[in-house]
Amino acid sequence: MAASEVASDAVRHRYDWRFQRGDITIAIPLTPLTNHQIRLAARPVGLPTPANWQATEEPVTEPGEGGVLVKVLAISLDPAMRGWMNEGKSYIPPVGIGEVMRAGGVGVVVASKNPAFAVGDTVSCAPGVQEYWNVPADHIKRSGMARIDLRIGTLTQWLNVLGMPGMTGYFGLMDVGQPKAGETLVVSGAAGAVGQTVGQVAKIKGCRVVGIAGGPAKCEWVVKELGFDACIDYKASAPEGVAPGRWDAVREGLKQHCPQGVDIYFDNVGGDILDTVLARINRGARIIICGAISQYNNTTPVQGPKNYLSLLVNRARMEGIVVFDYADRYHLAIAEMAGYLKDGRMKSKEDVVTGGVAAFPATLGKLFSGENFGKLVLEIAAT
Amino acid sequence: MAASEVASDAVRHRYDWRFQRGDITIAIPLTPLTNHQIRLAARPVGLPTPANWQATEEPVTEPGEGGVLVKVLAISLDPAMRGWMNEGKSYIPPVGIGEVMRAGGVGVVVASKNPAFAVGDTVSCAPGVQEYWNVPADHIKRSGMARIDLRIGTLTQWLNVLGMPGMTGYFGLMDVGQPKAGETLVVSGAAGAVGQTVGQVAKIKGCRVVGIAGGPAKCEWVVKELGFDACIDYKASAPEGVAPGRWDAVREGLKQHCPQGVDIYFDNVGGDILDTVLARINRGARIIICGAISQYNNTTPVQGPKNYLSLLVNRARMEGIVVFDYADRYHLAIAEMAGYLKDGRMKSKEDVVTGGVAAFPATLGKLFSGENFGKLVLEIAAT
Repeated sequence: MAASEVASDAVRHRYDWRFQRGDITIAIPLTPLTNHQIRLAARPVGLPTPANWQATEEPVTEPGEGGVLVKVLAISLDPAMRGWMNEGKSYIPPVGIGEVMRAGGVGVVVASKNPAFAVGDTVSCAPGVQEYWNVPADHIKRSGMARIDLRIGTLTQWLNVLGMPGMTGYFGLMDVGQPKAGETLVVSGAAGAVGQTVGQVAKIKGCRVVGIAGGPAKCEWVVKELGFDACIDYKASAPEGVAPGRWDAVREGLKQHCPQGVDIYFDNVGGDILDTVLARINRGARIIICGAISQYNNTTPVQGPKNYLSLLVNRARMEGIVVFDYADRYHLAIAEMAGYLKDGRMKSKEDVVTGGVAAFPATLGKLFSGENFGKLVLEIAAT
Repeated sequence: MAASEVASDAVRHRYDWRFQRGDITIAIPLTPLTNHQIRLAARPVGLPTPANWQATEEPVTEPGEGGVLVKVLAISLDPAMRGWMNEGKSYIPPVGIGEVMRAGGVGVVVASKNPAFAVGDTVSCAPGVQEYWNVPADHIKRSGMARIDLRIGTLTQWLNVLGMPGMTGYFGLMDVGQPKAGETLVVSGAAGAVGQTVGQVAKIKGCRVVGIAGGPAKCEWVVKELGFDACIDYKASAPEGVAPGRWDAVREGLKQHCPQGVDIYFDNVGGDILDTVLARINRGARIIICGAISQYNNTTPVQGPKNYLSLLVNRARMEGIVVFDYADRYHLAIAEMAGYLKDGRMKSKEDVVTGGVAAFPATLGKLFSGENFGKLVLEIAAT
């Protein structure tokens, strides 16, 4: 019996069914299969609250012709999610009210009517915040669903340096930043998913790398574990005898750790930190605008960089990046970074939260308070 | 007698001396030669006032070994002058207190001890706001002094499309903007020196060109004389029945005249107009940051572009330009634009104010009120 038929049968008859592929064991229990979901109930003003979410459940259905059923194992929690919750034009349409919240994730194929995917395949995909993803045929390619190889990276690494954040960091750095050995790179959100990729790849390419992160624990980890040359704690308070109003931890840190100025700034945060770095850039600097987490929950207009004329004075460039544009080269970046993971030149840290889809609203809040330490991942089902 | 000796003698003995070269006749009268100057007396806060300037006079001296004496015919008044009056790091050092105000200009060599320049040569140079410029040998090359050919452009055209503003517009457009036929370009300060070059070159390169300028007269001229496809009057008031607070002339104009969005924005003004254009850019747009005249006289911090995250959404780029970086290619741009002037595809409009150096402070004010119509030039001596 072909794999797709086995699985389809399993869904239809709901018998207890197990299989193993590599390290992953999937057990589908002898109970009706229910898909728990988190939907967007209302658009947030400022920080998302519980009122923005609605928990729903649906019976799991078998895939349609050419489709696939994925059991979701883990999802990626990203700052970009906040933008997807807003009305209005952006690089992708907003999540509609009443729709399952959009999320990237990893899962395992439990039923397949598509010859490109077999039951038991582990895949990287965009399942949303739910336990099962029934993917129609026409959506498989468009959603970028792809088999992943757990020999070159763990499940959570496939959501981190080998996943979207890693691709964002890699292509933003290499294509827009164009690092040259000996240059100084600064990256904000240094302990986050994108930041850790950017800094480590830049080190490998021969740059002096200075991170910006919140709190001594993250900063110490960025330097000791990831090998950055320095990391500035933007939350550090003024030294004794200096009035807090006259103290800017980032400004002082840049003076100390970037004595030759800043050639590349990879910005994940926006706001005051962007302005402070703009005041220290070198001629011909490249500023990669990847995100602005400091601004996402604003109830006032975004804070524009008042030092943007530093671009003029320094003939510098500020450029935005959206990772999807590089989809046809993901495999090249993955191969390169898998090599670094294997030879130990690159580390990958994930902050994995358990609790399934019900834990999603509270876990998302960790991103905006800066509580997460490493790439934030929500486990949906134990492997 | 060699030219340099003639002139030197003329300076020493102050006899009445005339010569003609092309269309220019220079008469040095039989009176002691005095050099009237305008010096920076104090750094301005906000708009410059008469208290920022000091009028001085000095006897004209003969050039030193390898030097040249230039009689200044006209100077260029540029928005950048406001920046040069400020303390602090920029792309060139500020003008020092007590120094002759920096200015580009054109003049004629009246004495030369340098074999590269003969008496009677018309030159483009950076004489400052004064009547005679005694250029030391080591300053000639550094200052970019160069002979100009009045057969390919008039004196004032050499301060406009064939001069610094033209070079700024040309290289900002071509190198940073990288226009492609069929794209839509928007340029602010469209009736100004840089704006007229940018728009006309972009039209020649096949772009749809929309200007932004202040007042119906400038807008009409930009469309009828320069051949822009449209020009938005940013000062236009709300149509009847629309509350002024809900009306944004630039936003409405962009909707009307850029139905395909904006691919290139050449920004001379900054402020609200930059933000409004940012909201209409296309994917992959290029924004050339050339100036921000709306912000130069601020007594509050510069207004940062609060829509800068449009760069991210649209994978767009914002890049600064300083014309001096292209000095080794000026001759190529001049040759190209001289061709356009000759075949009538390009026009050049200067707003020439008479009155000599004494008129400088008041004339500079015209730039910031937007009163000038075309490239603002101050005639220092009649030819």
